[in-house]
Amino acid sequence: MERMRANVFHGVNDIRVEEVERPRAGVGEAVIRVTLTTICGTDLHIVRGEYPVKPGLIIGHEPVGVIEELGPGVTGYAIGDRVIVGAITPCGQCRACLSGQLSQCGHGAGYEAIGGWRFGNTINGAQAEYLLIPYAQANLAKIPDGLTDEQVVLLADIASTGFSGAEAGGVRIGDSVVVFAQGPIGLCATAGAKLMGASLIIGVDGDENRLVMARRMGADVVLDYREVDVVAEVNRLTGGGADVTIEALGTQQTFENALRCLRPGGTLSSLGVYSGKLQVPYEAFAAGIGDYRIVTTLCPGGKERMRRLMSIVQSGRFDPTPLVTHSFSLDEIAEGYRVFGQRLGGVMKVAIRP
Amino acid sequence: MERMRANVFHGVNDIRVEEVERPRAGVGEAVIRVTLTTICGTDLHIVRGEYPVKPGLIIGHEPVGVIEELGPGVTGYAIGDRVIVGAITPCGQCRACLSGQLSQCGHGAGYEAIGGWRFGNTINGAQAEYLLIPYAQANLAKIPDGLTDEQVVLLADIASTGFSGAEAGGVRIGDSVVVFAQGPIGLCATAGAKLMGASLIIGVDGDENRLVMARRMGADVVLDYREVDVVAEVNRLTGGGADVTIEALGTQQTFENALRCLRPGGTLSSLGVYSGKLQVPYEAFAAGIGDYRIVTTLCPGGKERMRRLMSIVQSGRFDPTPLVTHSFSLDEIAEGYRVFGQRLGGVMKVAIRP
Amino acid sequence: MERMRANVFHGVNDIRVEEVERPRAGVGEAVIRVTLTTICGTDLHIVRGEYPVKPGLIIGHEPVGVIEELGPGVTGYAIGDRVIVGAITPCGQCRACLSGQLSQCGHGAGYEAIGGWRFGNTINGAQAEYLLIPYAQANLAKIPDGLTDEQVVLLADIASTGFSGAEAGGVRIGDSVVVFAQGPIGLCATAGAKLMGASLIIGVDGDENRLVMARRMGADVVLDYREVDVVAEVNRLTGGGADVTIEALGTQQTFENALRCLRPGGTLSSLGVYSGKLQVPYEAFAAGIGDYRIVTTLCPGGKERMRRLMSIVQSGRFDPTPLVTHSFSLDEIAEGYRVFGQRLGGVMKVAIRP
Amino acid sequence: MERMRANVFHGVNDIRVEEVERPRAGVGEAVIRVTLTTICGTDLHIVRGEYPVKPGLIIGHEPVGVIEELGPGVTGYAIGDRVIVGAITPCGQCRACLSGQLSQCGHGAGYEAIGGWRFGNTINGAQAEYLLIPYAQANLAKIPDGLTDEQVVLLADIASTGFSGAEAGGVRIGDSVVVFAQGPIGLCATAGAKLMGASLIIGVDGDENRLVMARRMGADVVLDYREVDVVAEVNRLTGGGADVTIEALGTQQTFENALRCLRPGGTLSSLGVYSGKLQVPYEAFAAGIGDYRIVTTLCPGGKERMRRLMSIVQSGRFDPTPLVTHSFSLDEIAEGYRVFGQRLGGVMKVAIRP
Repeated sequence: MERMRANVFHGVNDIRVEEVERPRAGVGEAVIRVTLTTICGTDLHIVRGEYPVKPGLIIGHEPVGVIEELGPGVTGYAIGDRVIVGAITPCGQCRACLSGQLSQCGHGAGYEAIGGWRFGNTINGAQAEYLLIPYAQANLAKIPDGLTDEQVVLLADIASTGFSGAEAGGVRIGDSVVVFAQGPIGLCATAGAKLMGASLIIGVDGDENRLVMARRMGADVVLDYREVDVVAEVNRLTGGGADVTIEALGTQQTFENALRCLRPGGTLSSLGVYSGKLQVPYEAFAAGIGDYRIVTTLCPGGKERMRRLMSIVQSGRFDPTPLVTHSFSLDEIAEGYRVFGQRLGGVMKVAIRP
Repeated sequence: MERMRANVFHGVNDIRVEEVERPRAGVGEAVIRVTLTTICGTDLHIVRGEYPVKPGLIIGHEPVGVIEELGPGVTGYAIGDRVIVGAITPCGQCRACLSGQLSQCGHGAGYEAIGGWRFGNTINGAQAEYLLIPYAQANLAKIPDGLTDEQVVLLADIASTGFSGAEAGGVRIGDSVVVFAQGPIGLCATAGAKLMGASLIIGVDGDENRLVMARRMGADVVLDYREVDVVAEVNRLTGGGADVTIEALGTQQTFENALRCLRPGGTLSSLGVYSGKLQVPYEAFAAGIGDYRIVTTLCPGGKERMRRLMSIVQSGRFDPTPLVTHSFSLDEIAEGYRVFGQRLGGVMKVAIRP
Repeated sequence: MERMRANVFHGVNDIRVEEVERPRAGVGEAVIRVTLTTICGTDLHIVRGEYPVKPGLIIGHEPVGVIEELGPGVTGYAIGDRVIVGAITPCGQCRACLSGQLSQCGHGAGYEAIGGWRFGNTINGAQAEYLLIPYAQANLAKIPDGLTDEQVVLLADIASTGFSGAEAGGVRIGDSVVVFAQGPIGLCATAGAKLMGASLIIGVDGDENRLVMARRMGADVVLDYREVDVVAEVNRLTGGGADVTIEALGTQQTFENALRCLRPGGTLSSLGVYSGKLQVPYEAFAAGIGDYRIVTTLCPGGKERMRRLMSIVQSGRFDPTPLVTHSFSLDEIAEGYRVFGQRLGGVMKVAIRP
Repeated sequence: MERMRANVFHGVNDIRVEEVERPRAGVGEAVIRVTLTTICGTDLHIVRGEYPVKPGLIIGHEPVGVIEELGPGVTGYAIGDRVIVGAITPCGQCRACLSGQLSQCGHGAGYEAIGGWRFGNTINGAQAEYLLIPYAQANLAKIPDGLTDEQVVLLADIASTGFSGAEAGGVRIGDSVVVFAQGPIGLCATAGAKLMGASLIIGVDGDENRLVMARRMGADVVLDYREVDVVAEVNRLTGGGADVTIEALGTQQTFENALRCLRPGGTLSSLGVYSGKLQVPYEAFAAGIGDYRIVTTLCPGGKERMRRLMSIVQSGRFDPTPLVTHSFSLDEIAEGYRVFGQRLGGVMKVAIRP
């Protein structure tokens, strides 16, 4: 039995890089040798015990690698192909997937809430030398020649999620858009709003570095919530509220402000992961009759999504590489978690090389 | 100066039928002689002081009548034409209207929250002998021969709102739909879901009469929330949650249940008017990543909406007349408010004949 | 090696029921024992040589049956389960499927025009005792208890296609819809328009029987094109053109009339299979600036589509059984082709029982 | 009675700048003093007799100016306001407008094909010192300070039409798009596809200058149809067909190629004005079952459309000024027609200053 090194969750604040069994591909599966992955904010939640997973699980969900093994029934790929796999790995064959809701995949059967997210959640994840890919036919996306691992790794989750904030918001040419929180996902939401033709993009955060990056990603105006009354300022800049607001953090305050910054009939596109009771102040959405829409989205996945996102990087329309500020080897991953968790050294995203 | 009789709001629990000045049509306006109108739940809120309007206002917003006067610039109509006018009277020429959001009409300018609702809110309403119609060109809908006043009067608000619950929910052929609260609007939402091809419609209420009417309007199953665990039962009947849920009351409990009854990726279509803080239990919408949508809708208006709704009645697909259970003259309107407000005699909707 | 009886295409006007090898399920596949199938208009085209397939192919694409064998990787099913499989069998895992365009399935890879249609086209079909199901996980739809084979068999193609004419046309509550040709697919398009809330449905055909059936399926008005000027009459009935027209035959005349019957900004939803050059008279679509849409649709498939359609039959909203007018055993299938091909005895659809 | 100078159509190839009566604003109307307008390709068609208008009509439909007079019922504007008015002037209050189809405006009543286009078609146009604006409340769009006449004049028609090609095509992030013909409208369609996030934009033309400009407007690849087999090359570049193709000329060849360059399930967005019979080769759209969509669009208008387009120019996302290559006074307009009509001096668009 072959072995590999991997970052295993043992309990709250207890992750260890250790030797574990190397996976083998069953029917419809593949194994990739991971060449680049990341640490995600969700991984921090897991390590801190804020999102529960089973002890013994390898975490991480943003994998780039090389095909090592193909199980029966997987066709059109070759050992050695460079691939990216989305953080969300839909089966393509359940009720949810066949209805176009790949992220709520029911594994061949019905709908399952958040069912599309398996890596580092319900099955072993990407912070390892090798990774088992479920439903490989639907999820192995070949990387075009000319794109590096660094250029694509953030497409697996961060960019796919961020862009979906703009997409689910239905951003149209000429829209005004406000993006609340300019962490990696918010920055990609900002870039997504720009890609879709918004004519006024307002980025909101309280961190100087992030506001600078927000401009680089496409924000026309940035607002530091520590210094200005964001709702009043958005109201002034947009003449009565934005067409679309995007929430990219998951707090009561950002959600509520996102609602207060909307024009009547506008759309609040929410990407954040919330905890506790979320409150909707009735006056902030016109007592329920302001024709507001609140849409929530989990990161879209599947190989076609990855192909599309790679085509955007290839065209030069979007460059995610400035967001990867730090890089560590798999054995140094604990240090990566420390830097990322404590937001040291202007960190945005941390890359891990197994 | 000509006079007319009208039901005037003087203060909380103080409405009086009295003589007031009869309106005259200015540029782009019309005056109709009201032949049939109603008392709406919203009127009760106004009378009880739960929704503030200015003392001196004539209330009511569901008018059917005959054109009495046409102001300059209104073309294609004749004195004596039988018309219905929606509760919402969009201008057609502001930023909101030109964007297709007629109910958030900004009166020729930008967006205004709930701006499309004027009758009995910001201008005089329909519980009167005569009614001034703003933006008449956009709002006078001729009633086809063969349709009675009684057949169309509920289209002005109740049916337009109820149907919009199904429309905004995006009900598709084969969907499962749950409608919370089977008052007049919920009953029309039930009828709307049926019209749009839902294959399983579940009506929820705690009133025996209304559940009987729910079946008549298209519900396949009715649930009395006093007797069954609605969330569990919907989950069982739908195999994991409904595609669309419609909230037609405006309370925390119905909203929350509407959310808990959704499948991942489903749509909660909200019609209720809420007060206070509405809470969204985070676990009920998968912490924000269940791909849920929450859409809110104010009654669609304008003459084209009325024309479409009348065509549905004309075709025999929908008959609103069973919902009008009581009828009073304008002078007896106080009694109408009493019967409607206290839900006496199995009342659904009350008609008023000026 | 086990054998079975099947209807094999040998060449133009040469089909024979004979003994052939019985299929075995490979990875991701299943075999069903066919209990009911049909002859489709497309099969006639094949037999007549109007649509080319390879000699040696078993034809037919509307299968109902019982699971006989499950290949590796297919889960959640048991031998003996009653199932229906759509005429279109998407893989769920290619670029087209992951984009929601299941009928243009590329078999795990990119897009392939009409690629979702395999049964009796590129792989063996349903007019046989046993049928191999590709991508079984995506395509085996369990039949609910209480639904008979006869109630569901037309859902595999006819009803799925017909309904999609209304769905792709975007029929809304209150729309006027004209359906050209009232064969089995047109009749289901009529039923689909009714299900989606059209308030005026006009059925057009030149066959008395079919016009009678059109009324039964939901047409409010039927027009015999041999007797009336259809374009003029639709114009009169709709006040200037229908919101949606559905073409369900595949001829220049029906296509052109469908265009001429549209209001500006309307949608022509085309289901027909055309041959030769189709002409778009420029004046019939306002020289290209009338905001017209022309949408074409191939039968939607996959198990979720079948589940939805069965739920509609189960609810009593739609009953396809009147359309199956004749029934033959597999050995009598030649007679079935004769009756169906020559439209004898008021035939609509022919069922085949292997 | 005041007089003004205007370019009047007297018959085929007979236009004259002459003194005519100056318009006065009636109810709901306004008069603007034109400060900048253009010659459009459509004007050439009119002058050449290819599109019939009544002798005596002032032509031109792209007006920028200053409000000179406001009729009764027009509010929120002041004499002297700088405004742009779209080529299409919807009433906002007819059945078409209230349904969101402003370009098929029925002037307060039903639908009328191309009814929204009045200037220089059914009422006097913009090649004059003064212009009467119908439905002024819906059509006067104030120009923000800081935008010059030159920056906005092309928004009235060219940019609104071109962008709508991408919008009606439903261009999504990561799409491949081919734009056939790179005249002013095609160039704006190219820019629109870029604005909406297409990752591969292929511009097709046979004019060197225009291909250079196509790159400037956002094309990633340009193809000269005189030199390459466009269909084969698009197929190669896109891996089997583009997601969206845009036709911006109005000929059989460009239409047909636009269809042949589509992937299954793709959308052909047509902007061209066709004459004669348009042919749809059946094999080019998979005999009608390739899930293709063909959408046609007339220039969107109304003040909100203009406001949105100006916001895009203001944000710096799109600069139309390179497209205005020549400028003439109103009295020199005949020379402008000559230069534009014969495509002299690399002309793209000609500006006219009354």
